Amino acid sequence: MKTDVNSLPRKHLFDLPEGMIYLDGNSLGPLPRAVKDHLGAVVTDQWGGHLIKGWNLDGWMEQPMRVGNAIAGLIGAPEGSVVMGDTLSIKVYQALSAALEMRPERKVILSDSGNFPSDLYMAEGLIRHLGQGHELRVVAPEEVASVIGEDVAVVMITQVDYRTGRMHDMAGITEAAHAAGAVMLWDLAHSAGAVPVDLAASGCEFAVGCTYKYLNGGPGAPAFIYVRPDLVGGIRPALSGWLGHDAPFAFEPSYRPAGDIERMRVGTPPVLQMSALEVALGVWNGIDMEDVRAASVALCELFIAEVEARCPQLTLASPREAAMRGSQVSFRFENGYAAMQALIARDVIGDFRAPDVMRFGFTPLYVDEADVRRAVSILADILDNRLWDDPAYRRTARVT
Amino acid sequence: MKTDVNSLPRKHLFDLPEGMIYLDGNSLGPLPRAVKDHLGAVVTDQWGGHLIKGWNLDGWMEQPMRVGNAIAGLIGAPEGSVVMGDTLSIKVYQALSAALEMRPERKVILSDSGNFPSDLYMAEGLIRHLGQGHELRVVAPEEVASVIGEDVAVVMITQVDYRTGRMHDMAGITEAAHAAGAVMLWDLAHSAGAVPVDLAASGCEFAVGCTYKYLNGGPGAPAFIYVRPDLVGGIRPALSGWLGHDAPFAFEPSYRPAGDIERMRVGTPPVLQMSALEVALGVWNGIDMEDVRAASVALCELFIAEVEARCPQLTLASPREAAMRGSQVSFRFENGYAAMQALIARDVIGDFRAPDVMRFGFTPLYVDEADVRRAVSILADILDNRLWDDPAYRRTARVT
Repeated sequence: MKTDVNSLPRKHLFDLPEGMIYLDGNSLGPLPRAVKDHLGAVVTDQWGGHLIKGWNLDGWMEQPMRVGNAIAGLIGAPEGSVVMGDTLSIKVYQALSAALEMRPERKVILSDSGNFPSDLYMAEGLIRHLGQGHELRVVAPEEVASVIGEDVAVVMITQVDYRTGRMHDMAGITEAAHAAGAVMLWDLAHSAGAVPVDLAASGCEFAVGCTYKYLNGGPGAPAFIYVRPDLVGGIRPALSGWLGHDAPFAFEPSYRPAGDIERMRVGTPPVLQMSALEVALGVWNGIDMEDVRAASVALCELFIAEVEARCPQLTLASPREAAMRGSQVSFRFENGYAAMQALIARDVIGDFRAPDVMRFGFTPLYVDEADVRRAVSILADILDNRLWDDPAYRRTARVT
Repeated sequence: MKTDVNSLPRKHLFDLPEGMIYLDGNSLGPLPRAVKDHLGAVVTDQWGGHLIKGWNLDGWMEQPMRVGNAIAGLIGAPEGSVVMGDTLSIKVYQALSAALEMRPERKVILSDSGNFPSDLYMAEGLIRHLGQGHELRVVAPEEVASVIGEDVAVVMITQVDYRTGRMHDMAGITEAAHAAGAVMLWDLAHSAGAVPVDLAASGCEFAVGCTYKYLNGGPGAPAFIYVRPDLVGGIRPALSGWLGHDAPFAFEPSYRPAGDIERMRVGTPPVLQMSALEVALGVWNGIDMEDVRAASVALCELFIAEVEARCPQLTLASPREAAMRGSQVSFRFENGYAAMQALIARDVIGDFRAPDVMRFGFTPLYVDEADVRRAVSILADILDNRLWDDPAYRRTARVT
């Protein structure tokens, strides 16, 4: 291994429980240390002290753009092309509906079976709601690039598969979509803060993502949307809320979209949540995503090697080739649910996705080589001694 | 005055800046004292300490229903009929799109010119997006009940006018809508926590509202949606996100709506914001909305009488009859913007809405008779001595 996985010593910026090895930053990032005091000040000094004046005094109104610009820097997007708000599902709907309007003669939304279900559900709802004969076509991940026909209006792909960590070739698929005349929409839920992303270079029309995973914005942190700058002026948002209006405080009777990416805003932004995210993004100051990637690959490689050497009961579910993986590694195990519960009971936090996937996220800002080695030791102990075979770890109805 | 306006002594539950008279709770409610410590604990102990386990351990997943039930109690809705999430604009879209599907043969959304612009904008966006020949018809507030024709699919009305405080007769308009075969959608932005609302008795199909005004949930607090319980099972949400799925964590390939109001959920809820709101709602414990209403009417009556006696420069913009008003009073004044800035500089906080409306919200939980008298004294001083005529108070481009 060429890269020193301990070269990003930022663990001190996070408030991790003593003794816990947290391998679930791909689901919910841990608490950056700066959040508590900052959010306390936002509550006390801004909301409590300035009340309504906070919208101006404390920059609440511009915050969705300010935070969007901070995220733009992490995903290869130019200043002014990303804005925050709502949830990822809502942002998917906004992008999809705009994309369909850009290709009125085409009726297919193409996605893959590795996409996160909510993206597919939102597409279904949109199609049914429009009643214009659109179709959601879902193919296997490896087929996407080769099946983009001239009936495809938009290709909607989550770059990194939430279950297996399989990573799509952003440049290649975008190129294939464009060659077929389709619009490209990337969901960066498991990419932003996890792998280098170069949206501008890809030429894709839309990208969306969430901020509570690798960006550590806290539970329910707002989503982001990117629109390619040359296109934004032509988009008529389906969700045309007042804060996407060109002059929201003129209270005009009719909607007139803002000239820029702000037209993708909808309602009043969640200031407390947005403030937690804004300060959380401070941990990325001075970081090169290529360094994060190198460290992440090294941690993932180490984890795979150690698990395969010490836990023969598990089968790798993620691509073996690092270039094909995001920042997580998944293994299949028929008793995966119980084994994950046993691991969690020993303070090694990963998660489980039905039917049999044990999922581990590697986040070099606060996970190091020693954590990986210790996690595998505990996992091997659980498997070798069948410690998962305990009534306490039986599956219950709700699995989060 | 029969009602003692000081009979709701809850000022101690709020953290109001020393010396400030806050008459803008109709825009952003002040900080309930309990929020800071609770939110700090949510950040440190729940997010920081439990991380991903917070979804189960701390009840984050059920919070939108739990908070919805607390709000249901304030708006005359039965348990299980209200759920939280997103923004008011998004909830308007959900309700409107469902309403249009319930009346496929009708093409008109009827609203009034006193509605908040975002509701009208969302309707415009929906109509354009659907492309099915719908029409947004906007009439004067006093005409609504008499113009509901058989082409009207849905009547969408904000009960209390954001500018004038004019209050619609919920029972009467709902009855007129139903008599014409239309669906009724109420926006309770300026009603929830301000006036008694009896959704169940009205028989309306849908209601939506926000929680950062009279419910003091903080800037950007989540919205709520009510669906009449007998109808919810028939609704196919346009915004069909995973948390509205019957089994979100089964990750099924197709959307299958939850059996109840949870189908109106969309994406991951904003846990920090929702937790601030949940604890903020504690100030309503043991309160009867009829008492709040009586105190609010008394405060508004006192304010009108005092202003009319001492500030002849101003003209009442709100209905004179208390039964026709919500919990705010507005006056017109051609130099209203500057006068409001001068008032704010003296720590009496109201707000301004173009073109000439000075708006004052009365919230008996933390505003009392002495506040009203003092506010009018300061206002009279500003007007009598033309203190508003100062370059510092000239209008700037952005007015919030």
